[in-house]
Parts: sequence; C-alpha cells; structure tokens
Amino acid sequence: MERSVPTSADVARLAGVSRATVSYVLNNTSSVRISEPTRRRVREAARELGYVPHAAARSLRAGHTRMVLMPAPEVVASPLYSGLFNELHWALSRLDYTVVQFGSAGQSGDQAARAWAELRPAAVLTYSTFSARLGARGVDVLKRSGVRAVITLGQERTEGAHAVLMDQRAVGRCAGDHLLARGRRRIGVVVPEEPGLEAYSLPRLEGVRRAAQGTGAEITEVPLAYDEGSAARLAGRWRRLALDGVFAYNDEYAMLLMRALQDEGIGVPDETAVMGADDLMLGRLLRPRLSTVRIELPSGRELAEIVDRAVRDPGAPPEVHKVLGVTPVPREST
Amino acid sequence: MERSVPTSADVARLAGVSRATVSYVLNNTSSVRISEPTRRRVREAARELGYVPHAAARSLRAGHTRMVLMPAPEVVASPLYSGLFNELHWALSRLDYTVVQFGSAGQSGDQAARAWAELRPAAVLTYSTFSARLGARGVDVLKRSGVRAVITLGQERTEGAHAVLMDQRAVGRCAGDHLLARGRRRIGVVVPEEPGLEAYSLPRLEGVRRAAQGTGAEITEVPLAYDEGSAARLAGRWRRLALDGVFAYNDEYAMLLMRALQDEGIGVPDETAVMGADDLMLGRLLRPRLSTVRIELPSGRELAEIVDRAVRDPGAPPEVHKVLGVTPVPREST
Repeated sequence: MERSVPTSADVARLAGVSRATVSYVLNNTSSVRISEPTRRRVREAARELGYVPHAAARSLRAGHTRMVLMPAPEVVASPLYSGLFNELHWALSRLDYTVVQFGSAGQSGDQAARAWAELRPAAVLTYSTFSARLGARGVDVLKRSGVRAVITLGQERTEGAHAVLMDQRAVGRCAGDHLLARGRRRIGVVVPEEPGLEAYSLPRLEGVRRAAQGTGAEITEVPLAYDEGSAARLAGRWRRLALDGVFAYNDEYAMLLMRALQDEGIGVPDETAVMGADDLMLGRLLRPRLSTVRIELPSGRELAEIVDRAVRDPGAPPEVHKVLGVTPVPREST
Repeated sequence: MERSVPTSADVARLAGVSRATVSYVLNNTSSVRISEPTRRRVREAARELGYVPHAAARSLRAGHTRMVLMPAPEVVASPLYSGLFNELHWALSRLDYTVVQFGSAGQSGDQAARAWAELRPAAVLTYSTFSARLGARGVDVLKRSGVRAVITLGQERTEGAHAVLMDQRAVGRCAGDHLLARGRRRIGVVVPEEPGLEAYSLPRLEGVRRAAQGTGAEITEVPLAYDEGSAARLAGRWRRLALDGVFAYNDEYAMLLMRALQDEGIGVPDETAVMGADDLMLGRLLRPRLSTVRIELPSGRELAEIVDRAVRDPGAPPEVHKVLGVTPVPREST
C-alpha cells in the first residue's frame, strides 16, 4: 500500500493559511512579509505532515538551477583521476551546486547535448572522449537552452566552451626525454588494449614520438592487456623486439610488464629501462624501484572555482586553462 | 553578453501554433491527435530556435522523476567498489534512470534526508556510513515526501529501507580462519589510519576476532597509515609485537606492510604470514605472491535491478539481499 504524499494544500489546511503563504514560508521568500507565528505554524504543519517543498518547482520559478551536469564515467578512472573527481564533487557541493551524473552511452554529441539541455543545468562539465564528441554544435545547443557555462576537460579545446586542457602528450614527452637522456634508442610505448583508454594512451604515444624527433631513436607501439597472460606473451617475444627502453603507459602497466620481464630473465634496467607514470606509491615498493612521471592535476577546489566563475559570468569569452604539470621521477628502473 | 533563452512561446509563434501544441509535440504526448505536418513544423521551429523542453517541468507534470539519488563519495573508493559503482551508473542509465550524486558533508541524517527529499527522486540509494546516518527517521522523511524506494548498501539494515547487506565481518572471518588454519596464534589486524575507512575496517577486525573465539589465539589491532614512513616504523617494532600472522586490511596495505617487513629482514611467511583482501592483480605480481580474500560483489546490473524493482513496487515490504561472497585465495605469503 502506498501512503499518499502530502501536498502544500495539506500544509495550508492544517496551518490555516493560503497555499501561497506556505510557499513563501518554505521557500524563504524574503520579499513577502509574514509574521513569525505564522511562519512557525507553517513549518510545524509541514514537519507534522512530512511535507518538503519540491526542488523542481523551485527551479522552474527561479528559471535556473544550481546543477552541474557531468557525463557518467565510461571507464574505471585511475586513482589519480578518481581522487580529483571526488574532490571536485565535494568542492562543488560546498559551493552549493548539485552534481548530476548522466549516462549518454552510444549517443552522438548532438543527442547527448539535447538530453543534457533538457535538465536545464547551470553548467555542463565534460571530460575525456565526451569533450571531443560534444563539438561546437553541442556547445551551441547547450548554451541556447540556457546553460550558463560549458567546461571541457581534456586534450583539445572545443569552440565556445571553456577549456581545462590536460595535454597527455606532455606525459609522453616527459617519459621520452628521460629515456633518451638515459641513452635509450629503441623505445617501446605501451598502449593498453582495454577500451576507453585511447584518449590518454594515444596522446602519450604521440608525446614520446615528439621527444624522439631528430634524435635518431626509434619508437615502437607495444599493445598490452592488463593481465598476466598478455604480459608473459609480450615478455616472451621481448628480445626479438630488441627494445632497450619502454614507457609503460602508467605505473600499473609498468609493474605488470616489469614483473613479466624479470620472470623472463630480462634485466631491468640493464637490458631494458622501464618507466611508468602517475607516481603511485606501489612503484616505490617495487625492486628495482620504478621510475615514473609525476602528474600534477589541479585540485578539485580549483576546478570547482573555474566552474563557479564561468556560471557567474555566462557572457565571458571562453577561458583556456593549461593545468597538467609533469615531472620525471628517476628511480632504479631506468 | 547573454543570449536570450528561447521559450516554448517563441516556438509557438514561429510555428504558428498554440503553446499547448508545442508542448504536446515536443513531449510526444500520444493522447492528443496532431497532424504530421504540424508536428514537423513545431520540431523545425524548435530546432531553428535551439529550444529544448524542460525536464523539470515534465517531471512536475508527471508527478515523479526517474532520478536515483546517491550521496557523493566521501573517500576514494577501492578499485573494487569504483568498478561496481561505474557499472551501477551504467545499468541505471540503461533502465532510463538519471543518477544524481549529492553532497551532504557534515549534515545529520535528518538534514540530508530533507535536502534529498526536495529533489523528489524516485529512489535514494545510500551506502557505507550514509546508510547508518540516515536512520529510520530519515527513511520515513524520504518516503513521506514521495520517494518510491530507499535502498541502503552496507553493514546493517535500516528500518523501512531495502537492504543490500555487504557484511565486512565475513571478510575478516575468512582471513582469520585461513591464518588460524596455517597455525598462526598471534594475529595482527591492520586498521588504516585514513579517515572514512572505519566502516570497512572495524567490521573486518570484528570478523577476525570472531574467527579466533575459543581457539586461544590472540588478536591485536595494528594501526597503519598508507605511507612508507608509517610502514617502516611499524616494521621497526614488529618483533616486539611478536605477531606470527597479520591480516593487512586489503591488498594495498598488505603490499606496503610486506615490503616494510622484508626490508626489516622479517621472513614472510616464515616469521609472519601476511594476508590481504580484494584479490587485486598486483598481489600476484609480488614475491612471495600475496595470499588474499577474494570478495565477490553483486554486478552493477543486479543492483540496478533491485533498485528498479523497488521503484516499481513502492508498497512492497523491505527486502534484504545478502550479497558479499568471500573466498580465501592461498598463495605464498601465508
């Protein structure tokens, strides 16, 4: 049996006031003068009946919401990005925004933009492959529907949107420079076979290629799935690849590959230098200790402030923030 | 400069129809007969102006939403739980729900429940410490506001809510049984010092204690922060603790502790057996290979189906689903 849901009319009846008065009191409308005893009577009636006002109705009246819409994640984020997004959620909550995560699997950028626009968010914050899919047309659909700010996180700018650029090429470039400085000339670059990581892995590969330009070093793309079997097979044909260095995408793939190389009797770093990225603690626990690229992301608070500023000033021209910092962390594996 | 946002009145004017007709066409109302040419004219006018209907208005008309409200995460979830929540988001999207994550830091269960109720979600899905904080009163506030289903994930049931029980004590019990079967009698249990993990760590400790009941084995709580310094200090006084086995909370803490013990010259497993939990791949890459507790969580799809069933039948009595499966995975570290 369903209990009937109390309405503002029920509250009005119990408190002996009009529905308008109920609405004014519960929405804290300060422009209407209502005596404190009446306010108290309305609040007590609402509590007794278990009535709470409806945010959708309020949002219609206000003409906009405090909603920040983000696409639902398509892949499990690395610890680095999970941490950032958690922080961002918190920071947005503290600024009184509500974060809505919205799935849009298999939709085109246009379809997704129209579905997002229907929710009338104050801001849309996209990242990774979503940013690319949205495109200038998607941004336009969102803005015309009244979205105050569109912010894209990722590799490239999208016309009309604020850009928080995280250029993954810089990660590859940093790893490439380090391996080259260590005298490596036949360098492999791990490209994970798991779907959804291309937005990170391909720019990283490109970054290594750029580092090698004009050095005479040879760059080889090395596909690897995140399982022991795939790593063992790769290690089994490693000597034929004749690589003297490898940038293994991140620390987790580096750990997997380094273990397989060691099990195959390949010396790290003597025969092959191995470099990861992310600077996870586990890399320091390995023997040899893993060299890595430390990636500095903005804090969730900084991102939230970029969103908030954009919402406050919807007419401002698109800003570009370059936020990815990289530092090589040489340890024993290179 | 802000562009003015097109309204349904603008669409009606351009298409030469009434606002009601615009609403019928764009909301696909099938109960009203409107000719195909008129429908086309309305859609073209909407496209030209960049008008999209407002989901909040639709939700008011429909009297309920397809929104599933979840609290924003307070701590970075382990890979296991991150994966589950990603899957759950996806599965809910496929069932046509929109997932809203809502921060409620520092709010009491009552305050949070009232804030959530205002959004008029179809379902509220809480987990971990939120479930405990909500309480029977919070569930009541939500249901009286029209929320069709409240589902709690976690250690304990909450009166009035559907319960998806994930009893972490079972994880500790499994680890304890395994260490006892290996003949260990002075068993340490790592309790992470990082805030927010108590909801997992304390029931796991309790589970080990239960396993030891009546065996004469002694259980010692071992605080450990997730950093090398903390692990090295703990390893430095390990021999005074005189522990012959340790359940290290999860694989990541186990890896940290095992490395510190090895660096201190303490033999694993001879002097101290080390057991993790989660069965992450990294445990298989360690030497000795890490023994662990494999934890089977429900799939995101199963959870989404529990939510959907509860929404469809809001009058049904609260269901209890016990979903945590545990299996010991003995390797070389115990």
